[in-house]
Amino acid sequence: MPAILEDSGYSPDRKLKIIGTNPVKHDGPDKVTGRAKFGADLIVPGMLFGKILRSPHPHAVLKSIDTSKAEALPGVKTVVTREDFPEIAQGTGFGDMTRNIMAREKVYYDGHPVAAVAATSESIARKALKLIAVEYEILPHVIDAVEAMQPGAPILHEYMRTTGDDDAPDEPTNVVNRLALSMGDVEKGFAEADFIVEREFDTQPMHQGYIEPQGCVASCSEDGQIDLYCTTQGTHVFRDRLSAILKTDSSKIRVSQSEMGGGFGGKTSFYGEPVAIMLSKKARRPVKIVLTRNEVFRCTGPVAGSKTRIKMGAAKDGRITAAEAELVFQCGAFPGSAHVNGAQAMFTRYALENIEVVSREVASNRPKVNAFRAPCVPQVVFGVEGIVSELAAKTGMDPLDFRLKNAAAEGYTTCYGVTFGPIGFVETLEAAKKSAHYTSPVPEGQGRGVSAGFWFNRGGDTTGSLTIAPDGSVTILLGTSDVAGSRLSISMMAAEELGVPLDKVRAVFADTSAIGNNRVTAGSRTTFSVGMVIVDSARQTIAEMSRRAAEIWDVPEDGVLFEDGEFRPAGANVGDFDPLTIADIASRTSISHGAISGHSEMNVTGEGPGFGLHICDVAVDRETGRVDVKRYTVVEDAGKAIHPVQVEGQYQGGAVQGVGWALNEEYVYGEDGRMQNPSFLDYRMPVASDVPMIETVIVEVPNPNHPYGLRGVGEVPVVPTLAAVGNAIGDAIGIRPRSLPRSPPILLELIDGAGD
Amino acid sequence: MPAILEDSGYSPDRKLKIIGTNPVKHDGPDKVTGRAKFGADLIVPGMLFGKILRSPHPHAVLKSIDTSKAEALPGVKTVVTREDFPEIAQGTGFGDMTRNIMAREKVYYDGHPVAAVAATSESIARKALKLIAVEYEILPHVIDAVEAMQPGAPILHEYMRTTGDDDAPDEPTNVVNRLALSMGDVEKGFAEADFIVEREFDTQPMHQGYIEPQGCVASCSEDGQIDLYCTTQGTHVFRDRLSAILKTDSSKIRVSQSEMGGGFGGKTSFYGEPVAIMLSKKARRPVKIVLTRNEVFRCTGPVAGSKTRIKMGAAKDGRITAAEAELVFQCGAFPGSAHVNGAQAMFTRYALENIEVVSREVASNRPKVNAFRAPCVPQVVFGVEGIVSELAAKTGMDPLDFRLKNAAAEGYTTCYGVTFGPIGFVETLEAAKKSAHYTSPVPEGQGRGVSAGFWFNRGGDTTGSLTIAPDGSVTILLGTSDVAGSRLSISMMAAEELGVPLDKVRAVFADTSAIGNNRVTAGSRTTFSVGMVIVDSARQTIAEMSRRAAEIWDVPEDGVLFEDGEFRPAGANVGDFDPLTIADIASRTSISHGAISGHSEMNVTGEGPGFGLHICDVAVDRETGRVDVKRYTVVEDAGKAIHPVQVEGQYQGGAVQGVGWALNEEYVYGEDGRMQNPSFLDYRMPVASDVPMIETVIVEVPNPNHPYGLRGVGEVPVVPTLAAVGNAIGDAIGIRPRSLPRSPPILLELIDGAGD
Repeated sequence: MPAILEDSGYSPDRKLKIIGTNPVKHDGPDKVTGRAKFGADLIVPGMLFGKILRSPHPHAVLKSIDTSKAEALPGVKTVVTREDFPEIAQGTGFGDMTRNIMAREKVYYDGHPVAAVAATSESIARKALKLIAVEYEILPHVIDAVEAMQPGAPILHEYMRTTGDDDAPDEPTNVVNRLALSMGDVEKGFAEADFIVEREFDTQPMHQGYIEPQGCVASCSEDGQIDLYCTTQGTHVFRDRLSAILKTDSSKIRVSQSEMGGGFGGKTSFYGEPVAIMLSKKARRPVKIVLTRNEVFRCTGPVAGSKTRIKMGAAKDGRITAAEAELVFQCGAFPGSAHVNGAQAMFTRYALENIEVVSREVASNRPKVNAFRAPCVPQVVFGVEGIVSELAAKTGMDPLDFRLKNAAAEGYTTCYGVTFGPIGFVETLEAAKKSAHYTSPVPEGQGRGVSAGFWFNRGGDTTGSLTIAPDGSVTILLGTSDVAGSRLSISMMAAEELGVPLDKVRAVFADTSAIGNNRVTAGSRTTFSVGMVIVDSARQTIAEMSRRAAEIWDVPEDGVLFEDGEFRPAGANVGDFDPLTIADIASRTSISHGAISGHSEMNVTGEGPGFGLHICDVAVDRETGRVDVKRYTVVEDAGKAIHPVQVEGQYQGGAVQGVGWALNEEYVYGEDGRMQNPSFLDYRMPVASDVPMIETVIVEVPNPNHPYGLRGVGEVPVVPTLAAVGNAIGDAIGIRPRSLPRSPPILLELIDGAGD
Repeated sequence: MPAILEDSGYSPDRKLKIIGTNPVKHDGPDKVTGRAKFGADLIVPGMLFGKILRSPHPHAVLKSIDTSKAEALPGVKTVVTREDFPEIAQGTGFGDMTRNIMAREKVYYDGHPVAAVAATSESIARKALKLIAVEYEILPHVIDAVEAMQPGAPILHEYMRTTGDDDAPDEPTNVVNRLALSMGDVEKGFAEADFIVEREFDTQPMHQGYIEPQGCVASCSEDGQIDLYCTTQGTHVFRDRLSAILKTDSSKIRVSQSEMGGGFGGKTSFYGEPVAIMLSKKARRPVKIVLTRNEVFRCTGPVAGSKTRIKMGAAKDGRITAAEAELVFQCGAFPGSAHVNGAQAMFTRYALENIEVVSREVASNRPKVNAFRAPCVPQVVFGVEGIVSELAAKTGMDPLDFRLKNAAAEGYTTCYGVTFGPIGFVETLEAAKKSAHYTSPVPEGQGRGVSAGFWFNRGGDTTGSLTIAPDGSVTILLGTSDVAGSRLSISMMAAEELGVPLDKVRAVFADTSAIGNNRVTAGSRTTFSVGMVIVDSARQTIAEMSRRAAEIWDVPEDGVLFEDGEFRPAGANVGDFDPLTIADIASRTSISHGAISGHSEMNVTGEGPGFGLHICDVAVDRETGRVDVKRYTVVEDAGKAIHPVQVEGQYQGGAVQGVGWALNEEYVYGEDGRMQNPSFLDYRMPVASDVPMIETVIVEVPNPNHPYGLRGVGEVPVVPTLAAVGNAIGDAIGIRPRSLPRSPPILLELIDGAGD
């Protein structure tokens, strides 16, 4: 185990020079000038353009595909179908994955790929798609997850049986799996309750809404080498999954990442990329595929929708005595909603003793869901935090005091067996209570809601290298993706460790050939985990330079002390030498002793859970049903804000995405099972005028497992949003919404008394 | 010091599975299909085309440059001149370098850059060059190095004083420096001689003759980041030199290499690259510069020409008793011929006791010379091996026996202080004696010559990484360049170490951001040095996988043995476990324990000197002066031939380049100091019909400092060529040529009795 995992070297007394400041982002100039290259921006000589033919039917047997007319169209260089992809058994992870990329036996959703064309221009490729004759045997379909659970519902996968459910009959089902979590004695807990609230909630799938659609260029050589350039949250994960579904060695696949125009979890999976590879392999030329927004909406993974029943009880003194929940997550056509997150995280903010949760994942004829900030957690926290506020009201307590009364703290063991180390929920709640927003009165005619959020934060497989050039300047090599400014925050940590100006440090993102495996950039793991490996790498170079300084001075190795970016004699008895800077040592020894580099490969552990509290004021127009978010404050424990402005950006971005989810974003399907709003005109994402300036309060309760105490800040800010908005609406109109989104027509019905 | 430098683990008994076989080259398919991208092949959106204006004068003061008309031409985006490059003091290494890239005070040779233009097309850029008005004050020039040494010769650099010469007057000179080497007592040695031969020789500069001209694309961002894609033998060396002459941090410069269409030492220096960077910096767009063949000839470094006086004595028994030499190397307009190589290596094949060498480097109005295989050694070996054959004839000994009599062997200490370890010169000579070529009679009407060669072989700053993917396939990351197949030979070493099929290993060449510094790929150092770091890296991964195997089996770490690509229990008392392959361990532990990588940064030492013996048969047409090489055999000690066919390719390529140098290649300058033959039509490089199939004999006397015993094979094969051809011509026509090249008109004069 690397020493840094045993002792991070964290010290609250350490004086920091760079961490906690707000330097200009290293990627700023390239992004502002348009120099930055995104997924669609690579142009390669001889490149063909790929287009994908997609099923118009939500559920059908794929009887035959005739590509001959398309192949004969001048300018078409090749066509691929299911025949071109290696067979992998149905019902396995990779079997599902290859079938989602290109339909085999059946199509499972509107937009499911059935063939693809590579041609010398996009327009020829589009024309060619129309010449492909596909024979479908249309089957009945089901869109809603709860309907899909009913007896007699159309079955997507005949082989599917519910895993994790001993009572499930051995017959085809759409219920993918069932998981149960429990602690304590729920019955006893409810018996102790003075107030019990039980409600049903539902949330709609929403799209991650990244502005950059998926784009890639694939180039395959005659001897089976594959080069893939694409926008991705995980080059190595893409590589190894491609290796599996294409049945090719990982070392023969090189995945390079573009800059990313938003990911939010949605770029942890590939869509057109394997198709571009197959087209390139057959055409023997590079192939570019860029999805249209229509394709992004119809065929890439949205967030899982949910239907939940939640029951909680509290005693008069405000203690929550028991909590019980039944969760249904919709996963789309194939399993993989990560609903375990939701089941685990729904109550973690509170030190509950009695919990019972059952969660199910259900397939239906929709695109397979994908990750989104804190996957599956906001959906259930929406219900829990609604009930918590209701219970607070019933006990007559202030909603923050009620939460403080029940707040989880260091030492609490969750229902999934993790015992919290130092966490900052209490501090976050206290900061919220003292905030300018909470201490101000609710303006006339408005409603106020609060809601708390939690995310595990993640570590995992991470690698990094740090190399000092002969002039003392520093390059750090990262195998993750920069989804939100990590290149800067990690450069700041390297500069702080080495005691050099930030301008001397540059972070570069490696392709898969240059560095060992990294998990996807997701789960608020990157700045934390990559920070760990880069600090570890920096410390390796300091140790090496200390050895070189000792050699230069001809003193023992422990005769050298590194302090403030300089190597100094460790005490008077060592001798009197002028300090050596990193540049001094690098310039004097790089040639004679080889390069100065540190490398670190770790399964990073020690992540510190994150907690947040949101405060939301809304005005509801009772005539139109429009909700106006008037004021919004995010209070959250960052552990340590490496770059406070970027942390604020995370807080603000999470809140804005949650506001969209809460108020307007939804998938509209017709009777025919086709999505009716696959464009930014009809799919209503929030724009700048929809939200006020989001206020932020950064709480810093350090995570001592990290050298600088940080936790991770990407996921928590979206978690409380649905409930914060919902509770505010409830406060404004007296009826707390229990299903989302609360778009004007739906809210009008609620106001008019039609119920939730 | 890395353990591998103390104990390479070399064992003559090791059974090898992959090393010594001849698999298909990994880069073959890409090169055969045209997929491989060379320096000129990168196309970037928005790219401009750069062209360089060059001086037509060999020596002139650069009085003024008016670029206004060029700047006004539509399509011209920017113009750069000396004003745009940072000032660096004259007479320093970087001061010379920046002045060679772009003339400042004076122009020093025909073709010296004086300005450059970036425009939207090449033709506009060319037109713009004609609109730049340059005012020159023409100075007298000197082309020949010996003339440049004479009193009253035009002085290139007023500040220049001869270094290393205490007797030199403190006045301007073209003699850059003087170095002297001596051992023993030359006077006494000559007194013991029965035969003394003293001759003068001269060789002409020749061009490396790479088929791919220099090509690059530079892209600079508004915040000072520089991206350079180019054909280069040393990305890091380019980066750090650019850092110095552009006064920018190394970490802000990223140099990526293209495939290389030949380098031979000529791509260890940059020419258009800094100009492209400056153009891009001013134009704020990417700029491509590709040199024309005319520019390559006029302005990139040829090999140093030489003028030598060599005297050697031998006793009747064949023992060489003394050797003395005076060398003059022409360096072109700026210092840097590496003539120390020539002085050191000229006699190293023989265990001489009495040596005296004085060498000088002299500037003249020609392009600055550059490295070429075994820089400065073939030029002097040409003379020495001519005299050695003459002395052999005088003693009545067979020329190989004479060389055997004097051959250096393990334990001999050279005049530059190095004591040879195990070397293979005796074995090489013996193999030559037994060769099919040498044991066959000289055909009627032909002449035969032999000549020996030596090269130090090199190590130095080298880095590499090796990473095992979760499926067990292997990627190795190299920071050197592949000039001659090293990606395959190094992959073979990795596969051999790990016991995996070669197909599971892929070598990738890193850009400067991904890996620590490497010296240029030159001096026959790459397969040797990179082999060391990759074997070291592979062994690190084996150690890590042994730890993981021990954990899987729950046995102590020393309970695991790695053998034949498998991890096995080390002895019966450890327990009975099925062996684990690398793929087993990688797939089971990559996620739980992080990536499996090895990294190595070394100043590699332990290189083993290389020796060769060439045999050449020629026919000379006495009417036309044409020399026909009828048969040619290269015998050389490779230490160990990793990939014998590639080693043969090196032997053959070296011989062919030497044949061209010996017979036809030369720079023709007019009275005006301008090069008159800057094209492949007029500069006569050998073509396929000029040479027979070169026969090869690979001798293998292992270098025990390397895990597989290898030495390096790139330089030696050119070293004996000039003398082998010369001695063969001498044998054929009775007059041994002492100046090169021996092109038909020149040889005719020799035949007609006009002397050498």
